[in-house]
Amino acid sequence: MKVSELSDRSGLPVQTIKYYIREGLLPKGAATAATRAEYDDGHLERLRLIRALREVGDLPIASVKRVVGAVDDEDIGLHDLLGTAAYALSPVAEPQPEDPDWRAAREDVDAIVAELGWRVTKDAPTRDLLAQAFLALRGLGRPIVWTELRPYIEAATIIAEHEVGGMSFEGDRGRAVETAVATNVLYEKVLLALRRMAQENASAERFIED
Amino acid sequence: MKVSELSDRSGLPVQTIKYYIREGLLPKGAATAATRAEYDDGHLERLRLIRALREVGDLPIASVKRVVGAVDDEDIGLHDLLGTAAYALSPVAEPQPEDPDWRAAREDVDAIVAELGWRVTKDAPTRDLLAQAFLALRGLGRPIVWTELRPYIEAATIIAEHEVGGMSFEGDRGRAVETAVATNVLYEKVLLALRRMAQENASAERFIED
Repeated sequence: MKVSELSDRSGLPVQTIKYYIREGLLPKGAATAATRAEYDDGHLERLRLIRALREVGDLPIASVKRVVGAVDDEDIGLHDLLGTAAYALSPVAEPQPEDPDWRAAREDVDAIVAELGWRVTKDAPTRDLLAQAFLALRGLGRPIVWTELRPYIEAATIIAEHEVGGMSFEGDRGRAVETAVATNVLYEKVLLALRRMAQENASAERFIED
Repeated sequence: MKVSELSDRSGLPVQTIKYYIREGLLPKGAATAATRAEYDDGHLERLRLIRALREVGDLPIASVKRVVGAVDDEDIGLHDLLGTAAYALSPVAEPQPEDPDWRAAREDVDAIVAELGWRVTKDAPTRDLLAQAFLALRGLGRPIVWTELRPYIEAATIIAEHEVGGMSFEGDRGRAVETAVATNVLYEKVLLALRRMAQENASAERFIED
């Protein structure tokens, strides 16, 4: 197909498509004349993925490039590919290694991950995210205790096993990353909304006298 | 105590304390002379709450005022007080009633809440939040199905029952709201970080060949 059709079918302006080609996110089309190139369904698929990363994942071009590069590098296994996408999509907490309270919170996180036996890399952004939340809770006079954490760990495990267990790609690495975007970004929103609804319901059950 | 001591003990500048008094968030101290006022532990408690709402909840002054007003109005029952805090602390999605896809997503949400029998008000911001996520998932070619939602509902229920079940205030309405802030804002962060960690672990279990 011509670039105009690729634009129509992807819903992206020709300018944007050409920008993605210049940035190396999208392969060039096959040259059919000096100023003509032919595009195929592979280009359409790739644009779908870029769009998900940009519009849903809200990623900057540099991060999209890194993720797309990992999709194209078949030497990178599925776990590391999904990890590249997940780390890029994760919110980031700034570590504060000079603050002893922050260091203590981060040590608590590391101890919890070790205790659970979870396979989470030492430099996962989620460790700092959790440390930041622990630090803020301590600031409110609510240090973390195991009994408080248990239900969250249980809930997180139920969800993660469902999410990872349901993944089926048949070798389509781009689709695997699209699923990671939907899961990490959009099902996170689903979870947060449902949790707040469930809270309202539990509060009604407990505090409203019928 | 004098305002200077109130400032020391609350960690807030005298200027800020006077601003909160002018805005009606904090009651005036008892006048002891023309330019002197005496403050007590009630003021300190109230400043703790305001600080939690401002710094942790990131609420604008107008919202803090509404929440603090609900704390002081003993005619408002505990469920409605917690609801006032929770709605103020909830992210908000803009409804798009002209968009038929948005309306369909919102109808799906209402049907799910009805099916679950959850006591969630018609104007809860969480309904629009969930509709927004449904709409975005549909945009990625992933319409919502019950089997996909089930684990999130289960997880949300586990967490909410723990959170609401563990609430114990002995009549201290301000403390109840402080707990709502910590739960809604900070334990939400705990949950999100743990879920992403559990994903990484589940992915390692499934995709890394040892």
